[in-house]
Amino acid sequence: MSALSSLAPLGDAASTVAAHVDAARLLRSIETLASFGARSDGGVDRPALSERDLDARRYLIDRATELGCTVTTDACANLFIRRPGSENLAPVMTGSHADTQPSGGRLDGCYGVLAGIECIAALNDAGVRTRRPLDVVVWTNEEGTRFQPGAMGSSAFVQPALMERYRTVSDANGVTLAEALDAHANAFPSLTARAEQTPGHAFIELHIEQGPQLELADLPLGIVSGIQGVRWYAVTCNGVAAHAGTTPMPARRDAMTLAIAVRAEIDAFAHTLGLADTRVTFGRWSVTPNSINTIASCVTFTVDFRHPDERVLAAFDQQIAQCAQRHGVALEALFSHAPVDFAPALLTRLSDAADALDAPTMKLTSGAFHDAMYLAQHCPTAMLFVPSRDGISHNPLEHTDDDYLVLGTRALAHCLTALCNDA
Amino acid sequence: MSALSSLAPLGDAASTVAAHVDAARLLRSIETLASFGARSDGGVDRPALSERDLDARRYLIDRATELGCTVTTDACANLFIRRPGSENLAPVMTGSHADTQPSGGRLDGCYGVLAGIECIAALNDAGVRTRRPLDVVVWTNEEGTRFQPGAMGSSAFVQPALMERYRTVSDANGVTLAEALDAHANAFPSLTARAEQTPGHAFIELHIEQGPQLELADLPLGIVSGIQGVRWYAVTCNGVAAHAGTTPMPARRDAMTLAIAVRAEIDAFAHTLGLADTRVTFGRWSVTPNSINTIASCVTFTVDFRHPDERVLAAFDQQIAQCAQRHGVALEALFSHAPVDFAPALLTRLSDAADALDAPTMKLTSGAFHDAMYLAQHCPTAMLFVPSRDGISHNPLEHTDDDYLVLGTRALAHCLTALCNDA
Repeated sequence: MSALSSLAPLGDAASTVAAHVDAARLLRSIETLASFGARSDGGVDRPALSERDLDARRYLIDRATELGCTVTTDACANLFIRRPGSENLAPVMTGSHADTQPSGGRLDGCYGVLAGIECIAALNDAGVRTRRPLDVVVWTNEEGTRFQPGAMGSSAFVQPALMERYRTVSDANGVTLAEALDAHANAFPSLTARAEQTPGHAFIELHIEQGPQLELADLPLGIVSGIQGVRWYAVTCNGVAAHAGTTPMPARRDAMTLAIAVRAEIDAFAHTLGLADTRVTFGRWSVTPNSINTIASCVTFTVDFRHPDERVLAAFDQQIAQCAQRHGVALEALFSHAPVDFAPALLTRLSDAADALDAPTMKLTSGAFHDAMYLAQHCPTAMLFVPSRDGISHNPLEHTDDDYLVLGTRALAHCLTALCNDA
Repeated sequence: MSALSSLAPLGDAASTVAAHVDAARLLRSIETLASFGARSDGGVDRPALSERDLDARRYLIDRATELGCTVTTDACANLFIRRPGSENLAPVMTGSHADTQPSGGRLDGCYGVLAGIECIAALNDAGVRTRRPLDVVVWTNEEGTRFQPGAMGSSAFVQPALMERYRTVSDANGVTLAEALDAHANAFPSLTARAEQTPGHAFIELHIEQGPQLELADLPLGIVSGIQGVRWYAVTCNGVAAHAGTTPMPARRDAMTLAIAVRAEIDAFAHTLGLADTRVTFGRWSVTPNSINTIASCVTFTVDFRHPDERVLAAFDQQIAQCAQRHGVALEALFSHAPVDFAPALLTRLSDAADALDAPTMKLTSGAFHDAMYLAQHCPTAMLFVPSRDGISHNPLEHTDDDYLVLGTRALAHCLTALCNDA
């Protein structure tokens, strides 16, 4: 029986801290963070380690300092905002990321960071001292839009050896991650390196759902039992470029016609294999020469297949390979990640927190990747979701009702306080 | 009965000039012209009015001058290489273009220009003086890859009012056609403006087929009875961008799924309407946001539909409009051109020339646009094709056997000489 399942009583402290969550302060902080890289359409464009991101980090560091916290960093410029504990125990960790999609919203990632900081403020206001330290972490480059892959900060935290490769990655302007990290170091010369070597006691990530399930069920909180596994492939179909006006239809080898047929076949077996849990997306298409009056000579499209069952993912790998061979098209595996199951004991702790607040919940699986996907390899991990209006995310229209944002933060505060008092 | 059908005898002069076509000189000129903008793969990249095109034009003007011709130009920098006639009669015109696709071959357009110049050389060598002048024309920007639309030179020659709009068109670097025309004028300060105001007596364009029909029929010459009509459309399908991992399949509005369904429907009625003469191509695709893990919010694809029968084209217009309305997708008409029927009398004159050379021919319709499509509005016009190996064009692999290139030029010389001696 692990420390987490030791049935520590959800004492008064947790409820007191949850009650000290200040809705206005939380919502104001979301407004403020959204101003760094604000888009005219209400969205946010804040690439990882850009000037705008450095401004955002300066704001977060200033807030942390005002709250009496220390801030440390590591090889990937993750920020660790620590509220100390009274005993020399492994920290409880929470947090998310502060970079955004190019046309992103103000909540994806930011909400988890700011809710964590609000929990520290509530702990302070409630005058609660916890046994364990609480770390609110700002993970670097979760979105992966400036530097690929995404979740660099959290994956490198768990597997530091990844940094050697990550440092050489360039953005679209040829700036390497190493150079961007140097700029970060120069911007914050007083940040010291994180000393912690022991695994965290727990990691809880609070996030917007980015899907419609909570809204459809009309529930304010989702307890996330895991993250779907994923396969990313690129399929390249070759044809012969030829003149659209002169080439009789039977003489054509149109790469787009082939690509559409192969896509239809993949779509069909994805659904046959995965049934209602299947998520399959053909999101990126590149057509050569992409000319009105020339038959396509080459089409590459991507496949994003997700499922919570590793056996289904394995069967999909097999079938897509056979399909590619049958059609004579090239298949490139771009990325894969096994399904992640979060720590059952932490799911119980989140349920307990929601119950204490009389908040109804549902269990669900995350379809999106999160930093928690990597943290799950480091320490007991779980996630808490609040609803996304119309399921929309990665979009300036991303929205969660204020009441849900506050309730999610209260549940987080309750759970973190309890975890921070674990033996 | 027009002057063209006056049964002018195909006298000795025409056969003599055809016999004076110098195969080595013709082939050498093709080599030389291909050197301006030569690609390492054997192809040519020579955008209209680029430095490379100016170099090519300098070579053509120098050759014309050596052959005793005058060279004039007009508002669109078309070059008119004139071999004078003995009487004050409307000129016989031939020629094509010297700009290429970005990864073009050495024959598309260039062959027609160089064959015309070879005809002048053969007329000179044969010591033949004709009644009418012969104009070999180099039409500006037929390909339309630097400045849109294509066939600028020939269309503006026929409709000079088009120049006002054409002059404002910019290339990918923001250079306007007006600026490019100024550069051309500065490069060739001694060129004077073409004085001719009367329509030509005839225009004959010799060209590679750019399709497989002559090769499939194993015939060296094609007499082109007309050019297919064409419709170009852009179809824009809107969906909702959403997360590939979190959005259940039934909740998706995937713009690509819609686009593929609409494309299938257009493809189906294009074939039902046009039967074996249908040419339909969906060549250009633009996907937004074109991201692996985001459902497409918008897909635009182009439709290129060609058919020799205007009634079929009109029915297609009607059906695609209904289809777009039914699916709620946006339809933009980008370009249209009615089928062109070439002058029957000129087809006979081309047949006569081929017969005189014992060259078997077939009649065919051009699937590609050519400058002749516009010249047909100006004066009696026809085209002559030589075979394209594997039907390939707009490609460095574009190839026609030397024997066919020479035979095509002899047939052109025969026909032009006869036409130049028309009363």
